[in-house]
Amino acid sequence: MSSLRRAMATVCVSGALDEKIAAAAAAGFDGIELFENDLLVSPWSPAEVRARCADLGLTIDLYQPFRDFEGVKPEQLAANLARAEHKFDVMAALGTDLVLVCSSVSPATIDDDDLAAEQLALLAERAQARGMRIAYEALAWGRNVSTWDHSWRIVQRAGHPALGLCLDSFHVLSREVSPDGISGITDGKVFFLQLADAPRLGMDVLQWSRHHRLFPGQGDFDLTGFVRRVLDTGYAGPLSLEVFNDVFRQADPVRTAVDAMRSLIALEDGIGGRPLPAAPALSVHAFTEFAVDGRSGPALQDALRGLGFAHTGQHRSKPVQLWEQGACRVVLNSAVVRPQAAGTAALSAFALTSADPDKSRARAEALLAPELPRARGPHEADLTAIAAPDGTSIFLSRDDNDWRADFLPTGPVLTDGAGLTRTDHLGLAQPFDHFDEAGLFYHSVLGLTHSTSGEFAAPLGLMRSRAFTTPDRGIRLALTVALLRRGDWAPAVADPQHVAFATDDIFATAAAIDRLGGTTLQVSNNYYDDLIARFALPGNEVDRLRRHGILYDRDPDGGELLHMYTPVYGGRVFFEILQRRGGHDGFGELNAPVRMAAHRHLRLSAARELPR
Amino acid sequence: MSSLRRAMATVCVSGALDEKIAAAAAAGFDGIELFENDLLVSPWSPAEVRARCADLGLTIDLYQPFRDFEGVKPEQLAANLARAEHKFDVMAALGTDLVLVCSSVSPATIDDDDLAAEQLALLAERAQARGMRIAYEALAWGRNVSTWDHSWRIVQRAGHPALGLCLDSFHVLSREVSPDGISGITDGKVFFLQLADAPRLGMDVLQWSRHHRLFPGQGDFDLTGFVRRVLDTGYAGPLSLEVFNDVFRQADPVRTAVDAMRSLIALEDGIGGRPLPAAPALSVHAFTEFAVDGRSGPALQDALRGLGFAHTGQHRSKPVQLWEQGACRVVLNSAVVRPQAAGTAALSAFALTSADPDKSRARAEALLAPELPRARGPHEADLTAIAAPDGTSIFLSRDDNDWRADFLPTGPVLTDGAGLTRTDHLGLAQPFDHFDEAGLFYHSVLGLTHSTSGEFAAPLGLMRSRAFTTPDRGIRLALTVALLRRGDWAPAVADPQHVAFATDDIFATAAAIDRLGGTTLQVSNNYYDDLIARFALPGNEVDRLRRHGILYDRDPDGGELLHMYTPVYGGRVFFEILQRRGGHDGFGELNAPVRMAAHRHLRLSAARELPR
Repeated sequence: MSSLRRAMATVCVSGALDEKIAAAAAAGFDGIELFENDLLVSPWSPAEVRARCADLGLTIDLYQPFRDFEGVKPEQLAANLARAEHKFDVMAALGTDLVLVCSSVSPATIDDDDLAAEQLALLAERAQARGMRIAYEALAWGRNVSTWDHSWRIVQRAGHPALGLCLDSFHVLSREVSPDGISGITDGKVFFLQLADAPRLGMDVLQWSRHHRLFPGQGDFDLTGFVRRVLDTGYAGPLSLEVFNDVFRQADPVRTAVDAMRSLIALEDGIGGRPLPAAPALSVHAFTEFAVDGRSGPALQDALRGLGFAHTGQHRSKPVQLWEQGACRVVLNSAVVRPQAAGTAALSAFALTSADPDKSRARAEALLAPELPRARGPHEADLTAIAAPDGTSIFLSRDDNDWRADFLPTGPVLTDGAGLTRTDHLGLAQPFDHFDEAGLFYHSVLGLTHSTSGEFAAPLGLMRSRAFTTPDRGIRLALTVALLRRGDWAPAVADPQHVAFATDDIFATAAAIDRLGGTTLQVSNNYYDDLIARFALPGNEVDRLRRHGILYDRDPDGGELLHMYTPVYGGRVFFEILQRRGGHDGFGELNAPVRMAAHRHLRLSAARELPR
Repeated sequence: MSSLRRAMATVCVSGALDEKIAAAAAAGFDGIELFENDLLVSPWSPAEVRARCADLGLTIDLYQPFRDFEGVKPEQLAANLARAEHKFDVMAALGTDLVLVCSSVSPATIDDDDLAAEQLALLAERAQARGMRIAYEALAWGRNVSTWDHSWRIVQRAGHPALGLCLDSFHVLSREVSPDGISGITDGKVFFLQLADAPRLGMDVLQWSRHHRLFPGQGDFDLTGFVRRVLDTGYAGPLSLEVFNDVFRQADPVRTAVDAMRSLIALEDGIGGRPLPAAPALSVHAFTEFAVDGRSGPALQDALRGLGFAHTGQHRSKPVQLWEQGACRVVLNSAVVRPQAAGTAALSAFALTSADPDKSRARAEALLAPELPRARGPHEADLTAIAAPDGTSIFLSRDDNDWRADFLPTGPVLTDGAGLTRTDHLGLAQPFDHFDEAGLFYHSVLGLTHSTSGEFAAPLGLMRSRAFTTPDRGIRLALTVALLRRGDWAPAVADPQHVAFATDDIFATAAAIDRLGGTTLQVSNNYYDDLIARFALPGNEVDRLRRHGILYDRDPDGGELLHMYTPVYGGRVFFEILQRRGGHDGFGELNAPVRMAAHRHLRLSAARELPR
């Protein structure tokens, strides 16, 4: 398969037309679909837009949309053709030869395929006279024509060389009609291909389309199968994204365009186009690094000591400490330059082992996640580092231990601190604008698999969650985001972050933490009273949970999750300790509001005790 | 009709349980519905919650929800009854005797009304033994029971004195089944009444219910008719709000509870319960006041002068100027104490004439919008002032002119400045958390009527709009809000505000403004080229519009709107000039993105010319 050109509709991103075009060019697109409204509000003339695109190496692949053309009475037809001639004038000035005509939504449309075909043929004749072509698209909510196969019958009936189809994955895959027959479209009659993914939502298809589209790989549609079928027809035009999304429409267009391009690169790899370096297997969560300062550093040290960690190493050249317990490693870094308030801490990096770090880096680079430059002393480990969408650095090393040579030992690793064995997962609240971008990043760049998704009511508003893991669950990441960007009253508390450590016996761990003087989060008594009713657990078992503030969940197969939390340190960071039994694969999402309420209670209590 | 008690479900508002309860009490509610999850995550025991509510004068009217009880096999029934006994324990500690049992959503539910009735009767028997009662509710998405009439048949079949209905306006009015028959429910069998409004949305009813409920009067449901029917049955329990709303769930609970209470007060008036002072007729938009400082003041003066306004008066005791043209009045106030950045301006107040300002004030006060205290010099007009949800002061006076005595004349009113005749409307971008609150405020407190609503795509994201007017259109307010709270990349520019002035001849006005050296907003040429195609307007007419940057819209009845704008002054404020022809009743919403793009172009151009 030869390489396909890549395009993006201007409607995908926020801003004025010049900002949209600049963003598309910066992300490496070959062309754009120009959305008419973006042109109408622009101070640039069509000729200026054409020149600007040419300067940036972008073609204008499609002008869109032209609405409510076909299935009209003769007098309306004349008016519609006059409208079309005006669009052709604009297209001539833009230097584009293809216009999208979407199936009519007007209640007045006459339901007669012959009439529609005849009128579209007339339009195509006019277009052809000016060296232009018509791409006819069945809107999923079209008045009479709402499925791809119906639009194809009409195009065949019209039989005009300047009339073909525009296939939009959303309009096709949001309907019940199978896309299988697409492969049978003949004579190069697919003139244009628009791509959008979407979550499966039970809602009016127009609203679904206008608000909730996503880039390929971010939703639930089978884009790979869809594109393969279209390519079977001999289609050689661009892969063009047309994504209406409320969040993308108000986010930084440069970031969004990169996210868009990443989705196409991953999709092309999936369909066997330009292949990417395969994602090397990731296996172990090697360490987690926190950026700290003179106030938050000691707070985290105390917390770790209380959980049974020991300070085991000091970095050779930087003010960086290593803390360990079993295979749990935490790095406290006082040298990270990040814009954060004094006294706060932040999860600044985490390290994973890769079967082939060079290949991981090459894949990341091909997916527009380039290696981060790092200051490194002589003899220090050469870790590959890339940036996640939330700004966290991700280190990739071949060996779980090669980076440890950077640290001078300061004490032995405790194996019997509190029985913590390894890092189970990270919980990362994502910046509002970048949740779907983060999901695509972890899936495409790191090759992690989407495991669970959900929505839950937290004390300060609704939350969404989405988890990514390796097949063997050696690495797990749980992403969350507020459903609405939080305002003054319910701030998102700087996107809290946490590390969850595994234990094989949470009760023994809890007892050890008690002995060590560590602090865990107190949980409402009401929660435990209800547990008895919810799961029909014996009262004395619940009392054991209650004593240590251990939360409980059980899946339909009987797998159990027992987990407990610490308070929040440095304004943003906390720890979780958990035990999975019987292959429980979740994250205790139902218990998240309990944890959040307990954290809020601590914060409000502290605030009330502060002198006014 | 005797007064009904007023209650609010804790799920209506944000925060921890103590914050929710305090907010309900502060807003004057008599009771709460305690949502189980709010209790489970609370550090307070049920007895402590009971005591806290008693301290604040709140009763706990309902504990909810108890799920998936009925239509199960015998072994499951035993477990469900055990679960119920646990809830009864909690209820006893809370001191409440009523629990909501919602119709089962479990796929395993047996579809057998006799079985459901029999099992609910068993549950009611258990409840009765403890002096408690069961309110059975048909969830709109219940597995077998999803309509009120079905739940009523089951309750009748069960025939147990401790089993009655819970009627929820959302579950009833979101379904096709008519609520008319509700009046026929006998024997006081409506045990509880839950109220929620909602916009009519084409989406899955569960999602609709969980995210988009509104307080009565904010949506499209006929709550008045619904409540009347329930009262016909002899229901004498509380009117209780149960509103799941994504925005309310993350907003200030104290504000939200006041909004909730206002909705109930207005509803009770509507059903002929506790009557309010009738809303006196409002007629004229008397003046608009801007808070300015030493930098924004002169900028607004220049702008007004360029539009043909004259400085006609100086306030007797304050640094306040009056500017006039025809019946258009603008007040520039340098003495307003508002937290705003230096150099900025803000629409701080507007004045309307009321047929009875005292009654307007009394109605506002009854609707929890108390009079604002004002500093007033001797001999100065005693204007009633109340605060709108966005903080704007609204002055109400009997006479269009009595407040003018506060100003010493500084020059004559120009009648021929630029032909502006009167204030047509205000355009007020609302703070994100308070859009629905504002709608209810203008409707209930001021008695304005909702005219149009819409949604449109702006350059920096989607927007919603909602307009309120007097019957004769003497006063119009157009509210807008971003669909998502804007973030760093696309800030809401401090919620822009504008005044639209009417003219009888916009071309003459535009020519006069040119002569006066005034500045109006340049509009994209592309917009005009498209107008020709869109409305089949003659080219020379469009060129007249183009020359002056006049935007155009036409309604299906041929009514026309011609309107033009100024640049933004003081970071936030601009003016519009418009001419309505043939009874056009809109606000040119389709043109709003054109205006926004032009404003953005000016801002970006200015930023690019700034030295770095």
